[in-house]
Amino acid sequence: MARTAGSHSDITGPRVRAAAQKLFAARGFAAVSMREIAREVGVQAGALYNYTADKQSLLFDLMQSHLEALLQTFEDDPTATPEARLEHFVRFHIRFHHDRPDAVFIAYMELRNLTSDNFARIEAMRGAYEDRLEAILRAGVTDGSFDVADTKIATLAVIAMLTGVSTWFRSGGRLSLQDVEAEYWQMVRKAVAPS
Amino acid sequence: MARTAGSHSDITGPRVRAAAQKLFAARGFAAVSMREIAREVGVQAGALYNYTADKQSLLFDLMQSHLEALLQTFEDDPTATPEARLEHFVRFHIRFHHDRPDAVFIAYMELRNLTSDNFARIEAMRGAYEDRLEAILRAGVTDGSFDVADTKIATLAVIAMLTGVSTWFRSGGRLSLQDVEAEYWQMVRKAVAPS
Repeated sequence: MARTAGSHSDITGPRVRAAAQKLFAARGFAAVSMREIAREVGVQAGALYNYTADKQSLLFDLMQSHLEALLQTFEDDPTATPEARLEHFVRFHIRFHHDRPDAVFIAYMELRNLTSDNFARIEAMRGAYEDRLEAILRAGVTDGSFDVADTKIATLAVIAMLTGVSTWFRSGGRLSLQDVEAEYWQMVRKAVAPS
Repeated sequence: MARTAGSHSDITGPRVRAAAQKLFAARGFAAVSMREIAREVGVQAGALYNYTADKQSLLFDLMQSHLEALLQTFEDDPTATPEARLEHFVRFHIRFHHDRPDAVFIAYMELRNLTSDNFARIEAMRGAYEDRLEAILRAGVTDGSFDVADTKIATLAVIAMLTGVSTWFRSGGRLSLQDVEAEYWQMVRKAVAPS
């Protein structure tokens, strides 16, 4: 079988991942075949296996690189006040997720389609991100700037609230992303403040 | 073809819906065939079409009945204080969704698999539920008990935060559902309070 154009792995790898992400987000992991991903990339189905072992590996790679980027991009400054660190987290989380709707959708919706080993690895990465926020909340409880009964629950509550933005916010609507960030920050700030 | 046991529509209809809900939640709408639903119910594949026009109708029915139950079960008392009404909403929302993990998962995850007509009908029902919460927030803003810059955004933020509980809370863990309700209520109460 003749190799089709663009089959060098340094070029095709990212294109395979982009095609898989687009198709998984639009129709769901289970509904998409390797053959359809190959067609989207413009290679023969067999050629895909030069770049990925199988569809499960593709899904895991997509989720892993999304969470790696999340963990690497978020920068916390532990010398700042807990309130400044929390505001930075809120604005960062909203913006990061807004820029990557397909990756976010897959990272949340396709967890059930991971093998149990892969699921455990993804959960550990997500846990590491949650720990970054929980550290900020703990620092604020310690120095009295926050009043949170359970920092783990507050962490999950804040992340769920913020991630929700990506399900409804569309650029060009009534509010800018900056307006939305500011409003969520006011709600989060008050939610963890001493009453 | 002989009719299999339990093919009276008054018995089989609910069993078809229960089987579809279980399979859609576990593996996703796109991955489940009518044949598998029939096998789960214990009827011939052809017999399913006595109870539903197609898989799309089954999905729509599941989402519609979930949202109908949500709208019918939630009782707001407009004569109570906005704070009491909001506390009731918070506790109701957490408990209602906790009791129905499969229905919640499908209602949120399978929206992309609805036809555009069906999507519009489901979105209208979800909008009606959001309006119930927004009316409470508006009442509190009007009488000065809440300080919320944008009641629509606050509505979406509170619902996302509360619905998130169903993704991580498991009975028998460190906290009871009542503990969780109480902690979320404190966060929501503060988030909308005057600062």
